[in-house]
Amino acid sequence: MNNDANRLIVQEVAPRDGLQIEPVWVPTEDKIALVDGLSQAGFTRIEAGSFVSPKAIPALRDGDEVFRRIVRKDGVTYVALIPNLKGAERALLAGADELNMVMSASQTHNRANMRMSCEASLAGFSDIVALGRRPGVDVSLNATIATAFGCPFEGRVDEDRVLAIVDAYLRLGVDGITLADTTGMANPRQVARLVRRVLAVLPAAALTLHFHNTRGLGLVNVVAAYEVGARRFDAALGGLGGCPFAPGASGNICTEDLVNLCDETGIETGIDLPQLLALSRKLPALLGHEVPGQLAKAGRNCDLHPIPAALHAAA
Amino acid sequence: MNNDANRLIVQEVAPRDGLQIEPVWVPTEDKIALVDGLSQAGFTRIEAGSFVSPKAIPALRDGDEVFRRIVRKDGVTYVALIPNLKGAERALLAGADELNMVMSASQTHNRANMRMSCEASLAGFSDIVALGRRPGVDVSLNATIATAFGCPFEGRVDEDRVLAIVDAYLRLGVDGITLADTTGMANPRQVARLVRRVLAVLPAAALTLHFHNTRGLGLVNVVAAYEVGARRFDAALGGLGGCPFAPGASGNICTEDLVNLCDETGIETGIDLPQLLALSRKLPALLGHEVPGQLAKAGRNCDLHPIPAALHAAA
Repeated sequence: MNNDANRLIVQEVAPRDGLQIEPVWVPTEDKIALVDGLSQAGFTRIEAGSFVSPKAIPALRDGDEVFRRIVRKDGVTYVALIPNLKGAERALLAGADELNMVMSASQTHNRANMRMSCEASLAGFSDIVALGRRPGVDVSLNATIATAFGCPFEGRVDEDRVLAIVDAYLRLGVDGITLADTTGMANPRQVARLVRRVLAVLPAAALTLHFHNTRGLGLVNVVAAYEVGARRFDAALGGLGGCPFAPGASGNICTEDLVNLCDETGIETGIDLPQLLALSRKLPALLGHEVPGQLAKAGRNCDLHPIPAALHAAA
Repeated sequence: MNNDANRLIVQEVAPRDGLQIEPVWVPTEDKIALVDGLSQAGFTRIEAGSFVSPKAIPALRDGDEVFRRIVRKDGVTYVALIPNLKGAERALLAGADELNMVMSASQTHNRANMRMSCEASLAGFSDIVALGRRPGVDVSLNATIATAFGCPFEGRVDEDRVLAIVDAYLRLGVDGITLADTTGMANPRQVARLVRRVLAVLPAAALTLHFHNTRGLGLVNVVAAYEVGARRFDAALGGLGGCPFAPGASGNICTEDLVNLCDETGIETGIDLPQLLALSRKLPALLGHEVPGQLAKAGRNCDLHPIPAALHAAA
């Protein structure tokens, strides 16, 4: 493979998946500064906000303003999460480059998360795709399969069902598909098996993996997926996000921990790790709590420690 | 490979590597109860304490009493960390089944940690091996190479140097060797490369890998080492332990997170995960702080969550 084929693309999701569960209000200015900082750090894909009901997710009620006021950088795709046609219309007006629709593989989780059956979700996506393909509308369309590796209510999720949803998404005509391990239930063997099956029907450039670190396996699953050909991964600065069913457990895989893994193993991401660390280290003050990411606390391998003074004296 | 060859052996190190940096005094009774609980949970190897100077590590000054009063379970090897000949003599008197000696691959780290050069450490080990091989003494001998994957003061550690130390250890006549990533600097490609080289001169049954999760790569490195044939791994209940140079960062890889990874991927460990979780969930009260392990907070995959009540009502 050439370098481009080995490249790992990180889609930064902290502004959306990270901030959505934070109890504090992050001012619009700070959200814009975060997205702009991420653009400067070298990301090519940023999920910058969502267009859901402000009642459902008040933390992201300023999505329109964020999208309008961020500094667009050439080559960066700014993604908006949308729950329905109304959200899609708002996201298009605000200038989103890509719309991300979400449905769970598990009926129970979809009812809990989206308040409708999977069939109703798919019917709604059909309207959104029709909107996105209208003449004069220039937007990319991504569809996510949440709980693709397990459901916190139902447990195991049948892999054939996930493949059937991939097929349904492709028939709808989306440009990309995300397999999401919404509550961190995936393991590396399962990931390798399912990703292989999905890559048989979808090119790697159109597949995103979204892992949570709920049970400490987030980066293990990234490596497993990468080794069988996946190349695009969601991650959140500081490891923000999380699962309301596992308080205290980690959220999304941490972007700077992932980029460090790539840097150390010679996998190109195009992302500047020192810039990323500087952004991450602002999060505790912004959010009022420590964040799960490890690298911002530990530093990079090359950030060496001074030799203890006692040894100098003894030498 | 048959099942035995696939089995992953976890050496639990929380009673030693975990407790040694805790600022609170853990009463001897609680230490004994912890080791006894670990014996019951199915471990075959437990690093139960150390015999270092009580001034250097006051938290473990009751090593003698712990070793004497734990309930020995058949088939379990109770390991003691020892810094020198005096420690070895104390450990043998207390009934340790195995002595673990430690030297860093990096001279600077060895001076900081052991207050001597690597050459002086090796000379001391020679005396300890002579003691362990005396007629009538029945003890297994393990030697650890700390900072084998990187030094927080010197940075990169030459792999040839690590191989030379493995060779020196084998010439001393030890039974086992541990490669330790003392401050969490290893990456999976490096791990695969170095473990392959070491396994060319040492059987898998004699090699232990000791990873820290300082930069979030602990379990990634376990998988990388396992895939090239390593089978024995140190881990600490709750992910205890840590690096004084990275406050807030994780310590050892977390035993229950590792056992969950094995359970989910069909790798046998012989360890009972529910018992392990029960032990881990006592740690915050025992130590007065949260611990880094994820599984005790998130629960196993099969610990399903109740379906939200609103959905029942709607159904």
